[in-house]
Amino acid sequence: MAPRRIIIDTDPGQDDAFAILLALGSPEELEVVGVSTVAGNVPLERTTLNAQMVLELAGRADIPVYPGCRRPMVRPLFTAEYVHGDSGLDGCDLPPPSAPLGAKHGVDFIIDTVMAADPGTITVCTLGPMTNLAMAIVKEPAIVARIREVVLMGGGFFEGGNTTPAAEFNIFVDPHAAHVVFSSGVPLTMVPIDCTYKAVMTPDWLRRLRAVGTETAVQAAGMAEFYQRYGNQKFGTDSYPLHDPCVMGFLLRPDLFQGRDCHVDIEIVSPVTTGMTVVDWWGVTKKPANCLVLRDLDNPAFYDLMLERLSRLP
Amino acid sequence: MAPRRIIIDTDPGQDDAFAILLALGSPEELEVVGVSTVAGNVPLERTTLNAQMVLELAGRADIPVYPGCRRPMVRPLFTAEYVHGDSGLDGCDLPPPSAPLGAKHGVDFIIDTVMAADPGTITVCTLGPMTNLAMAIVKEPAIVARIREVVLMGGGFFEGGNTTPAAEFNIFVDPHAAHVVFSSGVPLTMVPIDCTYKAVMTPDWLRRLRAVGTETAVQAAGMAEFYQRYGNQKFGTDSYPLHDPCVMGFLLRPDLFQGRDCHVDIEIVSPVTTGMTVVDWWGVTKKPANCLVLRDLDNPAFYDLMLERLSRLP
Amino acid sequence: MAPRRIIIDTDPGQDDAFAILLALGSPEELEVVGVSTVAGNVPLERTTLNAQMVLELAGRADIPVYPGCRRPMVRPLFTAEYVHGDSGLDGCDLPPPSAPLGAKHGVDFIIDTVMAADPGTITVCTLGPMTNLAMAIVKEPAIVARIREVVLMGGGFFEGGNTTPAAEFNIFVDPHAAHVVFSSGVPLTMVPIDCTYKAVMTPDWLRRLRAVGTETAVQAAGMAEFYQRYGNQKFGTDSYPLHDPCVMGFLLRPDLFQGRDCHVDIEIVSPVTTGMTVVDWWGVTKKPANCLVLRDLDNPAFYDLMLERLSRLP
Amino acid sequence: MAPRRIIIDTDPGQDDAFAILLALGSPEELEVVGVSTVAGNVPLERTTLNAQMVLELAGRADIPVYPGCRRPMVRPLFTAEYVHGDSGLDGCDLPPPSAPLGAKHGVDFIIDTVMAADPGTITVCTLGPMTNLAMAIVKEPAIVARIREVVLMGGGFFEGGNTTPAAEFNIFVDPHAAHVVFSSGVPLTMVPIDCTYKAVMTPDWLRRLRAVGTETAVQAAGMAEFYQRYGNQKFGTDSYPLHDPCVMGFLLRPDLFQGRDCHVDIEIVSPVTTGMTVVDWWGVTKKPANCLVLRDLDNPAFYDLMLERLSRLP
Repeated sequence: MAPRRIIIDTDPGQDDAFAILLALGSPEELEVVGVSTVAGNVPLERTTLNAQMVLELAGRADIPVYPGCRRPMVRPLFTAEYVHGDSGLDGCDLPPPSAPLGAKHGVDFIIDTVMAADPGTITVCTLGPMTNLAMAIVKEPAIVARIREVVLMGGGFFEGGNTTPAAEFNIFVDPHAAHVVFSSGVPLTMVPIDCTYKAVMTPDWLRRLRAVGTETAVQAAGMAEFYQRYGNQKFGTDSYPLHDPCVMGFLLRPDLFQGRDCHVDIEIVSPVTTGMTVVDWWGVTKKPANCLVLRDLDNPAFYDLMLERLSRLP
Repeated sequence: MAPRRIIIDTDPGQDDAFAILLALGSPEELEVVGVSTVAGNVPLERTTLNAQMVLELAGRADIPVYPGCRRPMVRPLFTAEYVHGDSGLDGCDLPPPSAPLGAKHGVDFIIDTVMAADPGTITVCTLGPMTNLAMAIVKEPAIVARIREVVLMGGGFFEGGNTTPAAEFNIFVDPHAAHVVFSSGVPLTMVPIDCTYKAVMTPDWLRRLRAVGTETAVQAAGMAEFYQRYGNQKFGTDSYPLHDPCVMGFLLRPDLFQGRDCHVDIEIVSPVTTGMTVVDWWGVTKKPANCLVLRDLDNPAFYDLMLERLSRLP
Repeated sequence: MAPRRIIIDTDPGQDDAFAILLALGSPEELEVVGVSTVAGNVPLERTTLNAQMVLELAGRADIPVYPGCRRPMVRPLFTAEYVHGDSGLDGCDLPPPSAPLGAKHGVDFIIDTVMAADPGTITVCTLGPMTNLAMAIVKEPAIVARIREVVLMGGGFFEGGNTTPAAEFNIFVDPHAAHVVFSSGVPLTMVPIDCTYKAVMTPDWLRRLRAVGTETAVQAAGMAEFYQRYGNQKFGTDSYPLHDPCVMGFLLRPDLFQGRDCHVDIEIVSPVTTGMTVVDWWGVTKKPANCLVLRDLDNPAFYDLMLERLSRLP
Repeated sequence: MAPRRIIIDTDPGQDDAFAILLALGSPEELEVVGVSTVAGNVPLERTTLNAQMVLELAGRADIPVYPGCRRPMVRPLFTAEYVHGDSGLDGCDLPPPSAPLGAKHGVDFIIDTVMAADPGTITVCTLGPMTNLAMAIVKEPAIVARIREVVLMGGGFFEGGNTTPAAEFNIFVDPHAAHVVFSSGVPLTMVPIDCTYKAVMTPDWLRRLRAVGTETAVQAAGMAEFYQRYGNQKFGTDSYPLHDPCVMGFLLRPDLFQGRDCHVDIEIVSPVTTGMTVVDWWGVTKKPANCLVLRDLDNPAFYDLMLERLSRLP
C-alpha cells in the first residue's frame, strides 16, 4: 500500500522536532509532502528555521518548508520561550539550513496541495496553533470536503490546560483557528494532553536514544534533555511527555491509542476559559460528535516505535 | 471541646439527606443550628419538605428549617428530577413533617445567625446551589468576616462537570452565587466531584447499611438504591458516589481528605463553560489561593464513619 | 382619586434629591410610602444620610428611610464621586438628620410593602443601581405579580452611555440587578439618558428656582449649581440635565413624555459593553416588548412643573 | 496631482454599486486598481458577478475583479437578501459580464497590490464585511504599515445597529474581521450609519438621476428604486440612505464630512451586542484613538457630487 500523504503544520519546538523525525523515519507508512510553519512556541522566523534544520538533520532537505502565519487569527501572539528556550530548539546544535524556502505561503501550500490531490488523500497534521489550517479553510472552504483527516496535537480536558488552568498552549494561542476547524465538519482526531501526558519519556529511554549513536539520535537526545527540564520543574518528576510525536504515533499505530468520538466545543469568549477544548465525553449535550478524542496510549510500545524509527535516520 | 456549630444550606436530594443524617449522627462534633433550603435538585417547596422529613426521621424535628430562595440570582432555575426523582427523595417513604417551618427567610437565618454568634464560630455547609449564602453576603457583607468557614459540595475540574461537559450541577444552577462567594474572601473549602466521585457507595456497604435495621438506616438505604440507578446507567458501574456527605466527612475527619490551596475562578459569561470552577491547581495564574480544593479521600474509612454515625440514629 | 403609592429606591446624588423633592411637592398625586437606599453614586452610608437629610429639608422626616444593599449583586462597587462630590450632595448645606432609620433592610422594606399592599397598588421608582429591587425579586419572586409598575432612571441607547461608551451609570454599577428586573416580567418604564439628556436645566431656570426663596429652593439651587459643573465641563455647555426627576415627572405628567414599547436586553457578559441597555427600538429581534422606553419630553413644561412643585415645599 | 489609488473591497449590493460608480466617475481623483469581492449582502458568486456587471456598465471591464472569501473568519455567513433582493442588485437589468475574473484570490490581490506599491500609496475601501482585508492582515501583517488608509462603510453607534439592535450589517457579519482591522494600527476612517443615515436619497434626486438618461443613470435609478423599498417600509419615509457611496464621497470631498478621532472597540463576545462598534465619542475610556469616526455630512452637496460624477459615465 502506498504511504499516507501528510502535510506537517508545525511550530518547532523540541517535541515538534521529534514528531517530524518520527514521520521521516517511517517512509513506508508516511510521505511528508511538505511542511508549513506557524508562529507558536516561538516566532515564525524561528519555527521556520527550526523546521528546515530538522529536515536537513534527517537528510530530507528535499522536503519543502512553507512559512505560514506569523500571528493568530484574532488575538495577539503569545509564545513559549519559557518552555522551549529562545531558539525553540535549545539543547541541540544544528547547522543553518542550506535549502531555500518553499516559494509560497503556508496557507496556500495547504490549499493548493489539497485541491490538487485526489479527494480524501491528504492528511493534515497540526502540531502547533491551528492558524494556517483555519486560514486555509476560510480562504478556500472547498478544502474541507477534500481533506482525508486532520490529526492535531492540542487541547486538554481531564488534565485541564497547561498554559492557563483551562487551556492547552496550541489552542490557547489561536482559539479562533481551532474553532474554525472544529466547526468545519472536517474529519478530526485530537491528541490532547490527556493522552500526551501519558507519553512520558523516561531517563532510560533517553539513554537508549543517545546510545543509538547517529547524528539524529544524538541531537534529538540533546533537545529532549533540555526540554525535560521544564516539565521536571513543574511536576517534580524525572520524566516528561513528548506531546507532538503522538500525532505521528497515532497515524502509524492507531492500535496503540484509545479514545472516544465526542462533540468538542472551543471556548472563544471567556476571559478565564478561552482556548479550552470542551469535550463532551459523557454525551450530555446531545450534540453530534465532531472529533475522535484520544485519551490513552500504550506508552512503552509507543516509545519503542519511536526509537526504532529514529534509528533509521542518519 | 464544644461541637462545631454549623448551618446546613441544602436542596435535598438523596445525597443531601445522607449529609444531614451524617451531621445529626455526630452530635459530639457538629451542632446543627438550623437548616436553610434552596431550589436546586427540585423546587423549593420539595427541598424544604424533604429537609423537614429527614430531620424528623432522625428524631430532630427541633432543628428549625428556613425556606430560602426559590430561584437563582440571575439565571432561571434548572432542576434535576432526572437524577433524584420527582420528589427529590424518591426511594424512601417518610411521613409528612409535623413541626412548623422556621419563621424567617433562609437568607435572613444565615445573616442573623452569623451576626448574632461570636465571630469565627459559625460554619456554613452548602450542599446545593449557593444562592442563599451569596444573597446573604450581598444583603449583609459584614457576615464575610464573621463566618468561620464555608464548606461546599460543588464544582469539578479534573473530572469536568456532571451537568454540562464543564459544569457541576450546584455551580451550574447558580454560577453568579458561586462567583459572589468565591470572590468574597470568606474562608472556603470546596468538595468537587473530583473528590466525591471517589466516594463511591458499594453494594456491600448498602447491604451493611440496610442490615443496621433502624428506621433511619432502612429509609436511607431505600434512597440510596433509587439514587444509584442514575449513576449506574451513566457510568455502567454498580456503585455510585454520594456527593454531599463528603462535606460533613471533611468536617468530622479532615485527615481522610487530601487537597490543595488554589485560586478558583467561577465562569459566568460563556455559553459553553458557564458554571465551571476553574481551578488553578498548578499555580499558573499567580492569583492568590482563595479555596482549599479537595481531590482525594480515604473511601473505606469515610464509609465506615458514615455507617457508624448513621447507626446511632433512631 | 387617591394618590399613587410609591417606593423611592435611591442613591442621592443631587438629581436624586430633586426627584425626591418633586415627589414630596406633589402629595395629591404621589404618596411616598418609604425610601430605600443603595450604594451607587456614593457608598451606602452617604446615600442613606443624604436621603434622610433631603426628607427633613422638605419637612417630611416622617417618611422612613431603609438602608439597602451596600454592594452590587455580582460585581464590585463602582461609585461616582467625580460627578457628585465626596458627599454625593456637594453644593448644599443641610443639617444632620434627626429621625431614626427605618428598622428593616431596604430589600425587606420593598418585599414587605408590596406583599402587604393590595396587588397592583405599589409603584417602585428606582433612581440608582437596581440592586435592592432585584434582590427583593430573587428573595421573594411573588412581588413581581403584585407590583403595579417599576419606573427607573437608567440606561441609554441612542446616546450611548455616560460611564463607559456603551453603559449608563445606574445599569453599569449593577448590570445583573437590571438583568433580573428586565427579565422578570414586571411592568417596566425606563427613563434612559436618551430622554433625560433632553431634560436640561438652564441657567435661567436655576435663577428662577433660587428666586423662590424657600430653604428647599435655595438648597436645591446650590446642589444644582455644583452638579452642573461636571456636565458643563464634559459637554461644553451651560446647561446640564437632571436625570432622576424625570421618573417623577413621568408619573405626574405622562403626557409630557414620548416613548415606545420595546424589548430591552441587559448586557452582562462583555468587557466592553457590560451594563448596556440594548433597546430593540425597530423591533428587529421579534422578542416581545418588556419595557416602555422613553425618548423625548417636553422640557419647558417639565421644568415648569418642577418649579411649581418645589415651590410648595418649606 | 495623480489620482489616489484605491482598492474597492465590496459585496454589491445596490449601494455598493453606487459607490463603485461614484469612484469610476471620478478618474481625476480616484484610480481603481482593482475590485475584490466578499460574501455579505449575498453569497460570493453573486457579489462577484455583480461587481463585474457594474464595472462593465460603466465601461470599465478593464478593471480586474478578484473573488475573495466566501465566508466570515469565525462565524457562519449571514446574508441580506431581504434588503437587496435575491440577486443583490434587484431593480436593474444588466447583461452578464464578458471579462474574465482576475486570476488570484481577493485576499492575495490586496496583499500583492499593497506590497508591490510604494508604501503609503494604496487606500483600501471596504464596503462589505471586512473579511478580505482582515485575512490579508493575518496572512501578511506587513501590509499594515504600507497601507495609506482604510476607509470603511460599517458600524453604528448613536443610531444603534441596522441588523441587530446594536450591530450594523457589515460588522455583524464578520465582527472578528473588523476586530482584526481595528486593532491592527492601520490608519482608519469609519463611515457608520450615524453618518450614512443622513445621506438620504430623495425622490427628487432620483428623478434627476433618471433624467440624466445615460444607461448607467437609468440602471442606477432602477437599483435605487428597488433598494428604497426596504427602508421605506422600515422607517415609513419616502427617502432612504445610500450607505456605501459615502466612502467615496469622503475620499473625494472630505470637507463635506464631520467626525471625530475616537477609540473604537469591536464587540466579539456577547450574544446580544456582537458586531457592535463601541465608539468612545466622549473619550471616557482614555484609550488612544484608532479611527476617525464620521457622523455628519452635507447631504445636498454630496448628492450633487454623486449626480455630477455618475453623469459622466456612459
